[in-house]
Amino acid sequence: MTKTTNNLDSCEAFAQLTALQPVGNLATLLTPQRVATAQVAMDDGMWFNYAAKAVDEPILQALQQLADEQQVVSQYRQLLDGAVMNGSEQRMVLHHLTRGQLGADVVHGGTSLRDFYQQQLDRIAAFCVQVHNGEVRGGSGERFTRVCQIGIGGSDLGPRAMYLALAHGQRSQKQLKLEASFISNVDPDDAGQVLAELPLSRTLFILVSKSGTTQETLTNESLVREALRSQELDPARHMVAVTSETSPLAQSKGFLTSFYMDDFVGGRFSSTSAVGAAVLMLAFGETVVKEFLAGAHQQDCLALNPNVDENPALLDALIGVYERNVLGYPATAVLPYSQALSRFPAHLQQLDMESNGKSVNRQGQAVRYATGPVVFGEAGTNGQHSFYQLLHQGTDRIPLQFIGFLREQGGSDRVIQGSTSQQKLNANLMAQIVAFAKGRRHKEANKVFVGQRPSSLIYAAQLTPRVLGSLLAHFENKVMFQGFLWNINSFDQEGVQLGKMLTQQVLGGRVEDDALDAYCRLFQS
Amino acid sequence: MTKTTNNLDSCEAFAQLTALQPVGNLATLLTPQRVATAQVAMDDGMWFNYAAKAVDEPILQALQQLADEQQVVSQYRQLLDGAVMNGSEQRMVLHHLTRGQLGADVVHGGTSLRDFYQQQLDRIAAFCVQVHNGEVRGGSGERFTRVCQIGIGGSDLGPRAMYLALAHGQRSQKQLKLEASFISNVDPDDAGQVLAELPLSRTLFILVSKSGTTQETLTNESLVREALRSQELDPARHMVAVTSETSPLAQSKGFLTSFYMDDFVGGRFSSTSAVGAAVLMLAFGETVVKEFLAGAHQQDCLALNPNVDENPALLDALIGVYERNVLGYPATAVLPYSQALSRFPAHLQQLDMESNGKSVNRQGQAVRYATGPVVFGEAGTNGQHSFYQLLHQGTDRIPLQFIGFLREQGGSDRVIQGSTSQQKLNANLMAQIVAFAKGRRHKEANKVFVGQRPSSLIYAAQLTPRVLGSLLAHFENKVMFQGFLWNINSFDQEGVQLGKMLTQQVLGGRVEDDALDAYCRLFQS
Repeated sequence: MTKTTNNLDSCEAFAQLTALQPVGNLATLLTPQRVATAQVAMDDGMWFNYAAKAVDEPILQALQQLADEQQVVSQYRQLLDGAVMNGSEQRMVLHHLTRGQLGADVVHGGTSLRDFYQQQLDRIAAFCVQVHNGEVRGGSGERFTRVCQIGIGGSDLGPRAMYLALAHGQRSQKQLKLEASFISNVDPDDAGQVLAELPLSRTLFILVSKSGTTQETLTNESLVREALRSQELDPARHMVAVTSETSPLAQSKGFLTSFYMDDFVGGRFSSTSAVGAAVLMLAFGETVVKEFLAGAHQQDCLALNPNVDENPALLDALIGVYERNVLGYPATAVLPYSQALSRFPAHLQQLDMESNGKSVNRQGQAVRYATGPVVFGEAGTNGQHSFYQLLHQGTDRIPLQFIGFLREQGGSDRVIQGSTSQQKLNANLMAQIVAFAKGRRHKEANKVFVGQRPSSLIYAAQLTPRVLGSLLAHFENKVMFQGFLWNINSFDQEGVQLGKMLTQQVLGGRVEDDALDAYCRLFQS
Repeated sequence: MTKTTNNLDSCEAFAQLTALQPVGNLATLLTPQRVATAQVAMDDGMWFNYAAKAVDEPILQALQQLADEQQVVSQYRQLLDGAVMNGSEQRMVLHHLTRGQLGADVVHGGTSLRDFYQQQLDRIAAFCVQVHNGEVRGGSGERFTRVCQIGIGGSDLGPRAMYLALAHGQRSQKQLKLEASFISNVDPDDAGQVLAELPLSRTLFILVSKSGTTQETLTNESLVREALRSQELDPARHMVAVTSETSPLAQSKGFLTSFYMDDFVGGRFSSTSAVGAAVLMLAFGETVVKEFLAGAHQQDCLALNPNVDENPALLDALIGVYERNVLGYPATAVLPYSQALSRFPAHLQQLDMESNGKSVNRQGQAVRYATGPVVFGEAGTNGQHSFYQLLHQGTDRIPLQFIGFLREQGGSDRVIQGSTSQQKLNANLMAQIVAFAKGRRHKEANKVFVGQRPSSLIYAAQLTPRVLGSLLAHFENKVMFQGFLWNINSFDQEGVQLGKMLTQQVLGGRVEDDALDAYCRLFQS
């Protein structure tokens, strides 16, 4: 851990990068030739296009040198081989192994962990067949028609975003097996609202908590069990668990069955583990989930390439670091032009901000440069009628990540006034990229667009399960590479601990802090 | 327009503010005494508590001077009296008048506009009675059980957020009259998915477009009409319009009836106009909407007070400007500890970023200071398991806006392991405020919390219709005051125009820009 864990600001390549002239005018950089060629293949007809990013050839060369100097692909290989990359928690980082093997056999406690993850997938698949064919039924003997996941954070945002991304397309193809719902917030109105809408006798619940101790999830479990009992349904016949083998939940008798994960897959990286696979396979079946995992694995393969112009996740990561640490931009907007990706920005917000919102490097020293940015976004074209005003004419520059597809999912596209809805959607997408980059002059000051707003575009023919898996893994790998570049541990989350501890003091009546005590009194009035 | 439209950086009070010593240690500032007293009444048992904001007495005095020097309450009074406050579009700004009158009679074209807005509300109420009692029915003779709003931007985000905020509570009290859905995105998968789930013979659609020309909305209207016809339902018996009297839609025969708005209520401020009232009254009835409007009007009254310690919206605005322009913070997170407010941050994101994401002052000159920040957020406790890591331990400080309630809406709260869900929710909320402000020391660097993260808290007994109206108007008025302080026009949105124009070029086959043409070719491959 010497040469590979430099701070960003002690890298020679970073000094070179900082010394380079930034792109003077994005409008002149963005030629038709560049639009057609400044892109990296992500396979399956999917591309990462960076034509409208403010990076020219000298900057790209310096970024390549930075990647080489920080040995980020080598660090990725170590991670794949089972090195302890989450140093603060002394854990391996193995989410890539949930969708395929690229490194050495990773053995823990005498078990090959690739086999372990695969076994869990196989067990989930076998269980899903029983649910789908009616062998496993609810307490009243009815077939399950709904599935509801109880989980929070990584047990909610990723699986929910993935489900929403595929549900309409699968339903349109008559392939939706069970409709899914999600309960996450400890606010009783969350469970209350979802339970009011569910036919409980036909609903299978999935309780997801790695530790088996998550306050919100266990609280909502109790509300759900009580609701089932109030309809004289045996909760144990309506619930499965996804947890670690060592958690208290794993020993409980209150479940139809349990599927296992382990400490080497972090919550925000767990969509391809049992955490995501159980609900997705119940909703869509095994074939869809296998395609989804294959797409993710494909991006993991591409991420091994040391050449930035053949490694989309690495290039994306490097450009982001350049924008954050050289150009000084504070935030990034994720703008999928796809209603199916309506919650994908919320997932990326967790993935990115929880992984790289850190101030301490892997040697336990405070860093003196910016790390992860604020990430936010909404599905387009909705955002255009909302926050794009600030993106175009505000006083800060916010780099943009567009995502688009040539075709829709649901087969309801129609020609209306000379073009289809999908054509209108994509016309907006392309127009925005150019408007942000080039702007326009105008004699009235408030109609001037300065332009110079950089964006990248990921596009594919259609949002299939495989393409969704690719998208997911692309951003996971981007975030991982950025953590390597910043020399931070992207795989722990110590920042959630203090709030948990103080919450326990409040609930246990053991408040030590006098200000906290005063807030408690406000809320008793 | 001389003294009242100073730039922020030419104000004497701003120079004084900048010269003041910032609060050295938020942890020592946050005493129990301060928690109990550093708050402004919002009436109805609702409070704006700024105890954990990094503003001490000298800073508050300078902020009061800044408000006085910029004459912001006087500008607000001019606005209420019908002054042309949207200068670039030469329009009055009258959303306050949709919920009550506080200034002079505003007469336009011989009509008192307060009367006009009230008449539209009365017409909506009369129509809702006919729908609810079954006098007005769908094409097949069935009663309407669902309402679906077709609109985008301000015709979607605000009304949707308001509907979601009240739906569970109203349903729990058996007061939900029609369940509501929303179609916004031009992506055909949006309409496709919503229509697949709606019982069309029992669904009433509301088409909302002020101009009657919004591309997304008219396209979705066509999809909806086609879907109705495909079930042999007469679209004209399933659709009402909300539009301006001068729009092409207002002349159309294809609606059961039309309700009117005008150019003096901007989309993002239109939740209390016919845009919000139609769907909310169909869903919840007249009483609920009247309470909602009364709550908004109440905040409009409070906003007239020139004393910052009695004007919660003004104080909130001033603290935000201090954080943005003196402390240099780039973003603000909105964190409602209420699942019912799940889309309230998305509404505030539009309200704030579209209003104040501007770089040009009201005299048409570029400003040399930061204006509106990035606004983002999710309902708590979900955010704690997502992006709070960065908020606690990231390299940027992001000011926070917490919102909380003593009681839940739905009556499903239960004691589980010694406390109810609502108690757990609020324990988390209070713990977070203190954790962000005070942080903690630790011998391991990655477990250190530096603290010094400022937050404010708006809290009330329960999220009732009246409290929701108060919340909505509080933020509208905050945004308005910030626009006055920054000397920008918060009421136009020129930043959306360029993208629209380029989109029309693409769809019309008249692309002038060669890079845009190249992007079009990418999407034809």
